[in-house]
Amino acid sequence: MRTPEPIRKFADLFSELPGVGPRQSLRIALYVIHKGRGFIDSVSTALNGLKSVRICRRCFNLYENEGDLCEICSSALRNMDVIAIVEKETDLLSIEKTGRFNGRYLVIGDMRKAGILTSEQKIKLKSLEEEIKSLEGGKAKEIILALNPNPIGDVISSIIAEEIRPFSEKITRLGRGIPSGGEIEFADEETLGESIIKRA
Amino acid sequence: MRTPEPIRKFADLFSELPGVGPRQSLRIALYVIHKGRGFIDSVSTALNGLKSVRICRRCFNLYENEGDLCEICSSALRNMDVIAIVEKETDLLSIEKTGRFNGRYLVIGDMRKAGILTSEQKIKLKSLEEEIKSLEGGKAKEIILALNPNPIGDVISSIIAEEIRPFSEKITRLGRGIPSGGEIEFADEETLGESIIKRA
Repeated sequence: MRTPEPIRKFADLFSELPGVGPRQSLRIALYVIHKGRGFIDSVSTALNGLKSVRICRRCFNLYENEGDLCEICSSALRNMDVIAIVEKETDLLSIEKTGRFNGRYLVIGDMRKAGILTSEQKIKLKSLEEEIKSLEGGKAKEIILALNPNPIGDVISSIIAEEIRPFSEKITRLGRGIPSGGEIEFADEETLGESIIKRA
Repeated sequence: MRTPEPIRKFADLFSELPGVGPRQSLRIALYVIHKGRGFIDSVSTALNGLKSVRICRRCFNLYENEGDLCEICSSALRNMDVIAIVEKETDLLSIEKTGRFNGRYLVIGDMRKAGILTSEQKIKLKSLEEEIKSLEGGKAKEIILALNPNPIGDVISSIIAEEIRPFSEKITRLGRGIPSGGEIEFADEETLGESIIKRA
């Protein structure tokens, strides 16, 4: 007897997901089957709910509400001339949780190990620059390079800094309150909040 | 800004799956969104495909074909009076892959750490006993207790052995010893000791 076809199909697809191996995806398939049709329907619904999540055309963050821009980019209460460049949506969410930042973001996307910008990242930077030109004075007050404090983050930060220097009065990085070699996603709120205040 | 509602719902549900933590399920949500609607549809389809998987009413294994029984229980080529009791479907599949077993199975379900049978497991054993009574001679030729060779598996095996003794001519467990391809130097004492006692 071989693994039933639907289980194999499911397990193959699921093992594509980040951090899920082939053995685990088989285990998940069996778990789901034993939970029954009702559970399959809930997971299906939750999965399809993700279709309503949109990508902000200004900052490339994910959002759900109506309109062209995310909650942050369309908020009258946030400083549009202070911009934090982050790698991932999860980094943005972590910074938001600290409640210490009232500017907006650019989600630049996963860092390449090679320490170079992808063409997609270059396009995102260009669109930020275009958009800064339309600000009062044609310059941002501050751009915070909120990338991971590790060698790749350092290299990419200096590449970006060079690129955007004409477009911002000040360019900063997060204060090294975060342990070097660590990752933003895993920093506790206090440390991360401190690093926003101590940015330099 | 908080995590968009559909992402939170998805991540909450996904972190219920075996081996998936809350951070990983958030990462999976973002991955899925970036892969797009087509990917969501494929995962949904694969997920709903699992609805066609059925549980065999005789051995409690999963199967897909039509009919009341799984491929093994409905096969004329397998010995119905030699039964391997396994914990999980994955154990069954592993044994099938060896091609060395031509009997049938009973999937008894996850072992409790407490080393006792759950009421569901007791019902499964009872149904096996009832069904053995209808065999020629009212007894199985052999029941193999193919549970994991660890303390819990040992305890459960002796509980089951006592329960089913009147229903089988022979009750066995899987042979224990050094794994093929393994090295004596790295075998733990318990395994090596066992392999000396069970030498053949």
